[in-house]
Amino acid sequence: MRVLTKDAASHIDKKITVKGWVHRIRELGAISFVLLRDRSGMLQIVFNGKVGFTHESVISVQGTARANAKAPGGVEIQDAVAVALASADPDLPVPVNGDPDKLSLDAVLDNRMISLRIPKILGIFRVQSTIVKAFADYLRGKDFTEIKTSKLVGSGTEGGAGLFSVEYFDTKVFLAQSPQFYKQALVASGLERVFEIGAAYRAEKHDTARHLNEYVSLDVEIAFIDTERDLMDLERGILKAVFAAVSKENAGELAAFGACAPESRSVDSIPVVGYDEGKDIISERGGRRVFDINPEGERLLCDWALEKHGVDAVFVNAFPRKKRPVYAYPDGLKTMSFDLLFRGLEITTGGRRINEYPMMLDALSKFGLTAEGMGAYMDIFRYGCPPHGGFAIGLERLTQKILGLQNVKEASLFPRDRKRTRP
Amino acid sequence: MRVLTKDAASHIDKKITVKGWVHRIRELGAISFVLLRDRSGMLQIVFNGKVGFTHESVISVQGTARANAKAPGGVEIQDAVAVALASADPDLPVPVNGDPDKLSLDAVLDNRMISLRIPKILGIFRVQSTIVKAFADYLRGKDFTEIKTSKLVGSGTEGGAGLFSVEYFDTKVFLAQSPQFYKQALVASGLERVFEIGAAYRAEKHDTARHLNEYVSLDVEIAFIDTERDLMDLERGILKAVFAAVSKENAGELAAFGACAPESRSVDSIPVVGYDEGKDIISERGGRRVFDINPEGERLLCDWALEKHGVDAVFVNAFPRKKRPVYAYPDGLKTMSFDLLFRGLEITTGGRRINEYPMMLDALSKFGLTAEGMGAYMDIFRYGCPPHGGFAIGLERLTQKILGLQNVKEASLFPRDRKRTRP
Repeated sequence: MRVLTKDAASHIDKKITVKGWVHRIRELGAISFVLLRDRSGMLQIVFNGKVGFTHESVISVQGTARANAKAPGGVEIQDAVAVALASADPDLPVPVNGDPDKLSLDAVLDNRMISLRIPKILGIFRVQSTIVKAFADYLRGKDFTEIKTSKLVGSGTEGGAGLFSVEYFDTKVFLAQSPQFYKQALVASGLERVFEIGAAYRAEKHDTARHLNEYVSLDVEIAFIDTERDLMDLERGILKAVFAAVSKENAGELAAFGACAPESRSVDSIPVVGYDEGKDIISERGGRRVFDINPEGERLLCDWALEKHGVDAVFVNAFPRKKRPVYAYPDGLKTMSFDLLFRGLEITTGGRRINEYPMMLDALSKFGLTAEGMGAYMDIFRYGCPPHGGFAIGLERLTQKILGLQNVKEASLFPRDRKRTRP
Repeated sequence: MRVLTKDAASHIDKKITVKGWVHRIRELGAISFVLLRDRSGMLQIVFNGKVGFTHESVISVQGTARANAKAPGGVEIQDAVAVALASADPDLPVPVNGDPDKLSLDAVLDNRMISLRIPKILGIFRVQSTIVKAFADYLRGKDFTEIKTSKLVGSGTEGGAGLFSVEYFDTKVFLAQSPQFYKQALVASGLERVFEIGAAYRAEKHDTARHLNEYVSLDVEIAFIDTERDLMDLERGILKAVFAAVSKENAGELAAFGACAPESRSVDSIPVVGYDEGKDIISERGGRRVFDINPEGERLLCDWALEKHGVDAVFVNAFPRKKRPVYAYPDGLKTMSFDLLFRGLEITTGGRRINEYPMMLDALSKFGLTAEGMGAYMDIFRYGCPPHGGFAIGLERLTQKILGLQNVKEASLFPRDRKRTRP
């Protein structure tokens, strides 16, 4: 019966079996110390003489668990006998037991199959798993239904630009930029409250620290709201649940990155500024007049929020119509839409959507579009659609910002960018 | 403050507001009965005189909740005043308040935006949401980590056939048939136990009641197993959790389809038959010698299991090597692999995988493949990979078989087949 390394301390002076990867070998002549790594942590194994296996080999070890204050965690396995379950080639392309901060991003991503073994790097994806769970649990608790919609679509939700095309038998389809139309359809179907966790694609050529060509979108859509303020409240609730879960489940991973998730009360303090007001704040702090909120502006706005409201995040609303998609619900010359900037980066875009058919027709004409061109999307509104809205959180960006990663690609298991399509 | 229709009975003789869709209108001259539908159910509303809205319009209703034994659910809203939030065009392409069994599959799928409103049809996706949750919760309870891997890959996991190609900037990539290689990489990374809920693609031309070109794959992979029997036990646990959750959460949906999920003890009774034994059983029951297990054979085997073991499901193992992928762990001339047939349909394929580098090289040569051609996949085995295996459950097929749907396309929100790429 295998014992996990984290549970060895419960078996002091008993003979146990542990299994895992050879993380570190120190041969001191008469004895050798091996640090064994499994999914639960690390454990020191003491062997007599030299060991016959390499770093990263997978071994099964029998021995006696003994208390030893000098061993990591206060316990070690003595009188150990090992069987190799799989041997590792000694020429590791990147060291698994070294400091990953000394590796370039290219070294990490080019050797992804091995760099993922580095505990600090693997921890990023333990955090990501917690985020996904907390997001889904919170919404299910609020009576949301999880949906899975097609990623192969006839046309884009935000116009035709930035789409990857797929050869589909005798025709051509595109990879969906978002489940926007589908989640609206499901709200109107009567589910009222839906969420989706799925892939989204952007065929954008820029290769920056904040862009991925394939990412995981945490999508939410809800009926019977009044304004985008209702959506911000929902997102505050989600973020509090996510931050609390990560703080509880991933204390070790946060510590490894010297990071911490915001506390609940700071989420309540996130200010809301209008788009124009946001530009004024940026202009004042940046020392020059700005006409848009660009990445540098996002950082300045978050700095302002931290200084004035004690939280490194800010909601921006009241975007002008021309800055938002055709389906954004108008409010005079502005829209009931919003972004959330967190630690200097936009992690959410959302808003109330147009739900009335005549208003949608009017909006289409303003954008130079036609009802015919929108296909079945128009059926949502033609046959009775409640007031509704929603938003999407980029999973990798949220992970990145919680942990303080330099590049969003670090938060994607197998990132896809302009040049990277493997592994 | 809005009250859900299911909660109206808790507000008898009080003035409340309900919101939802106009499901049915019966005008009797002096009064009109309207059945209002929201995400929680239906409620009868009594209006004086005729009503000014159409079926499927979204309305907000104020009135007094009164007990009435003749009303559906024993409660209705009297003295109602309605405000239309969104009007519906009266020419519904399919009736929302009719019997969906009278509609052809094409009518249902061609008019998907509206057919999803039909409560019985929408119920399919409430069940699906429960399945996803139960699957994830069960595995998280067993210390599994949820992963999200790229769906854009350089080559296929099962050879190059059956892949959709994507124009990716200046190169070409493919839509992943499964996360097979990635989930193996994550097991070997040290997570040991991973699952993924994600899209999978098959560019297969056949258009049958059991195929989708895009489906949701519930993928599982686990380290430190001995044989495929360990995987079958894990799948039994998952299925028991899924069936129990659907029975508890979706009693209404099951009743609408006259369906029931298998009980726990029947899951324990699922027999295991070898591939050769399975062919013998099929040959005997079908009255002619078979040389493969085809769809008709799958049905005959399940009939046999129901008759002999009281459960409409059977595990088939010991497939010959040439019937399985290169990575299937050999066991003499057979492999440690298995399928699960449920109610006449294969819903799972899995098995132990080769984890030793020399054995993998040998297998590649037997299949006419080379280590170079496998790219980074080989790094998983070169640098120490534990014994492991896994399987995948098709979400739509499982949904289909729980509810007894005729066609798997009914269990996909927006199905993609040979000719269907919209909506």
